[in-house]
Amino acid sequence: MRQIHIREVGPRDGLQNARQRMPSDAKKAWVRAIAEAGVPEIEVGSFVPPKLIPAMADTADIVSYALALKDLQVVVLAPNLKGFERALAAGAHKVTFPVSASRQHSESNVRMTPDQMVEEVRKCAQRPHPGVLVEGAVSTAFGCTLQGNVPEDDVVRIAAALAEFCDHVSLADTVGYANPAQIKRVFKKVGKVIGSKLRTAHLHNTRGLGLANALAAYEEGVRHFDSSMGGLGGCPFAPGASGNVITEDLVFMFESMGISTGIDLERLMEARKLMVAAIPDEPVYGHMALAGVPKGFRAAA
Amino acid sequence: MRQIHIREVGPRDGLQNARQRMPSDAKKAWVRAIAEAGVPEIEVGSFVPPKLIPAMADTADIVSYALALKDLQVVVLAPNLKGFERALAAGAHKVTFPVSASRQHSESNVRMTPDQMVEEVRKCAQRPHPGVLVEGAVSTAFGCTLQGNVPEDDVVRIAAALAEFCDHVSLADTVGYANPAQIKRVFKKVGKVIGSKLRTAHLHNTRGLGLANALAAYEEGVRHFDSSMGGLGGCPFAPGASGNVITEDLVFMFESMGISTGIDLERLMEARKLMVAAIPDEPVYGHMALAGVPKGFRAAA
Repeated sequence: MRQIHIREVGPRDGLQNARQRMPSDAKKAWVRAIAEAGVPEIEVGSFVPPKLIPAMADTADIVSYALALKDLQVVVLAPNLKGFERALAAGAHKVTFPVSASRQHSESNVRMTPDQMVEEVRKCAQRPHPGVLVEGAVSTAFGCTLQGNVPEDDVVRIAAALAEFCDHVSLADTVGYANPAQIKRVFKKVGKVIGSKLRTAHLHNTRGLGLANALAAYEEGVRHFDSSMGGLGGCPFAPGASGNVITEDLVFMFESMGISTGIDLERLMEARKLMVAAIPDEPVYGHMALAGVPKGFRAAA
Repeated sequence: MRQIHIREVGPRDGLQNARQRMPSDAKKAWVRAIAEAGVPEIEVGSFVPPKLIPAMADTADIVSYALALKDLQVVVLAPNLKGFERALAAGAHKVTFPVSASRQHSESNVRMTPDQMVEEVRKCAQRPHPGVLVEGAVSTAFGCTLQGNVPEDDVVRIAAALAEFCDHVSLADTVGYANPAQIKRVFKKVGKVIGSKLRTAHLHNTRGLGLANALAAYEEGVRHFDSSMGGLGGCPFAPGASGNVITEDLVFMFESMGISTGIDLERLMEARKLMVAAIPDEPVYGHMALAGVPKGFRAAA
């Protein structure tokens, strides 16, 4: 009985930021291994212009492959209507749209204010998409490398606007600025406004607080987490600092607490090996990979 | 107003396990820099047989130096009466005695059962020690590499016995086996029996849960933490896995949550540099050192 729902975002958030390119066949083998380890949902790629992010050029192919895997929810990122059309054509189960809560980040990234970006996503969501879930992902929800502080009222306002037309909303600590007190405070504030539409904590480990923040989110009632294998997706401005919270370590934390993720840690470590073999020069992280499970460790029932 | 009391244990727990030897002069400069950063308490060494642990041979000299530093509580470890006599002669403010809760670990380490070791410490505590605090440190309180599981009842029994004659009791996750749920459960159980004599969480980061465990301990009411700069004190059996929870990152976590440690993070990073320069080949860890504080970061008032 799964109590925590972990979405692996390595194939998207990780590889998008990797220096090395993972070949499509290796991506498929990796995605399959992740799914076979019991991960219920994978963000397999993004429909962005291939010229901008060549690593994501094979997303339609990866989606098509992933759709054949058993019990797997296949998610892609789309930044706009064109990306959404491609995601629908590919047959993804869920499409996630990033909206930065930081005005400076949003303007520098997409040349729109956060509120203008919300309207762009609204237009996408108004296009018929039978059976496909739409997720609004509030990025830089806990701070921004350009702007520094991101007002919590901005996060609440954007999340509330997205919840009008999205099935789910996630809050992302895109640059690893969050602390556990802030995580609890912001999830509580947003949850008060949008209720169960608030779903996923997308955390980074840039300052080492990834797992502590995940624990805080859990204690605040969050049951859906994004993470990436090996902590792929490190920030280029912080060499050596890992990127996303590390899937293997996150699974270990919850399982050791007796909270089931439905994921087999041993098989997950095998999937990690496939990833490392496919992009051997990419820095990867993770304490499980170094120290292994404790003697006598038992996964949650 | 300090809300969290952090004890730096790097000069003892860190250097004792380091491959490189830090010269006495460098130790002194490091200890001074740590104290000047606002750390209120330092475990500066241990009175163990110098033949066994040569890195600790200069402990009396370091204690004498540290006693001259302002507002610093000077702590040493002693494993037995002889060590305690040396600690008292040196003038340490506090002496900490390790007692392993794991029967196998205790027998293999000191050839005594945990209960026999408690009696050894009792004999030490019965020796007059005016003005000097005695601490019982329950090690392997959350698991053991030899024995695996350590029964929580054993931890409670040993902590209760130590509390009869110790001023303070600490619980140590010596090998990094603890998880946040266990931390809360065990601290609560022990606290019910010995009340405010239960003082310090000594956590390791072997499996990446150091900060999450510290957060859990904080939520359970713990306000005293051990940590080591750079995560010194890694387990030789887990290369790459850091040792003690990392002081810099621990300070950052609490300060970013608005909880004051009384420690100046910038000056702490300067102290770290002294340490790294003195043992340049030693593996050190820490996200603060890699990523720095977030833009707009403000320490707790």
